[in-house]
Amino acid sequence: MANNDNSTIVKMVFDRWNALLNNCDTKIKVLSNQQLQMEITPGKNRGIYILGHLIAVHDAMLPLLDLGTQQHPDLFEIFVNKPDKSVNIIPSAQELRTFWENQLGTLTPKMESIHVDEWFQRHNSVLPEEFEKEPHRNKLNILLTRTTHLSYHLGQLALLQ
Amino acid sequence: MANNDNSTIVKMVFDRWNALLNNCDTKIKVLSNQQLQMEITPGKNRGIYILGHLIAVHDAMLPLLDLGTQQHPDLFEIFVNKPDKSVNIIPSAQELRTFWENQLGTLTPKMESIHVDEWFQRHNSVLPEEFEKEPHRNKLNILLTRTTHLSYHLGQLALLQ
Repeated sequence: MANNDNSTIVKMVFDRWNALLNNCDTKIKVLSNQQLQMEITPGKNRGIYILGHLIAVHDAMLPLLDLGTQQHPDLFEIFVNKPDKSVNIIPSAQELRTFWENQLGTLTPKMESIHVDEWFQRHNSVLPEEFEKEPHRNKLNILLTRTTHLSYHLGQLALLQ
Repeated sequence: MANNDNSTIVKMVFDRWNALLNNCDTKIKVLSNQQLQMEITPGKNRGIYILGHLIAVHDAMLPLLDLGTQQHPDLFEIFVNKPDKSVNIIPSAQELRTFWENQLGTLTPKMESIHVDEWFQRHNSVLPEEFEKEPHRNKLNILLTRTTHLSYHLGQLALLQ
């Protein structure tokens, strides 16, 4: 009755990632550029910051998963290292939409190219000797933690209207 | 270099679940009963509704995971089947805090009693013949989907102040 081959487990996490990414894409498309400029609640992050934050965090998965270099280190600086409303000039909502679209078209196919067994190998911020003691710090765990991270912020974007 | 034994995979999902549950518990303890009565944003769910919703959804995991019967079917009716502000009399924030505390003390130990291999067996809303074709519909997938669900609503509770 049990089936625990690796492809099943990878599929479980991928299904969640894809479903949330699609929901997020739908929500972003429904929101106007003006709505994205709004704070979710007074004093909290704006929609545009969350959008830039998600692009930057997902972009930073590339080197961790051995899929290439970060495409947008500048966005990581603005939308991860700095809090919202602390940087004067940030990309426009329209520019961020383009980055989001391009990422949507390239990141998932790249991730799908990863062989099932490779998902259970260490990711690139873990040393081999650390991985020996902490075998859960594998590439699939990167996808899993980014999936719950995406869900957290999707819950917030969903409140914008 | 790869390590994909089942206990590693179960640990990965459990770590996420426990971390988010603890963050949620911390946030709930910081909020006053009065703050929980507030809508996260105007016209959207109140904090108290999200708290009741999480308790009800987590409670409903019990039968799905073969861990017993639902303890709070009444909460499921109010906080899942019905939208916020559609039921006149709901439990108080204080009552919900007690349910939350009790659940926190019992649900995770119960889940920890599930044998590693059992997590990869079908959950109780899947028929054996369905499971044969869709082996990802296992008990661990219940925990995974409830983990992203928890993260979604934690992102919203985090906005209450």
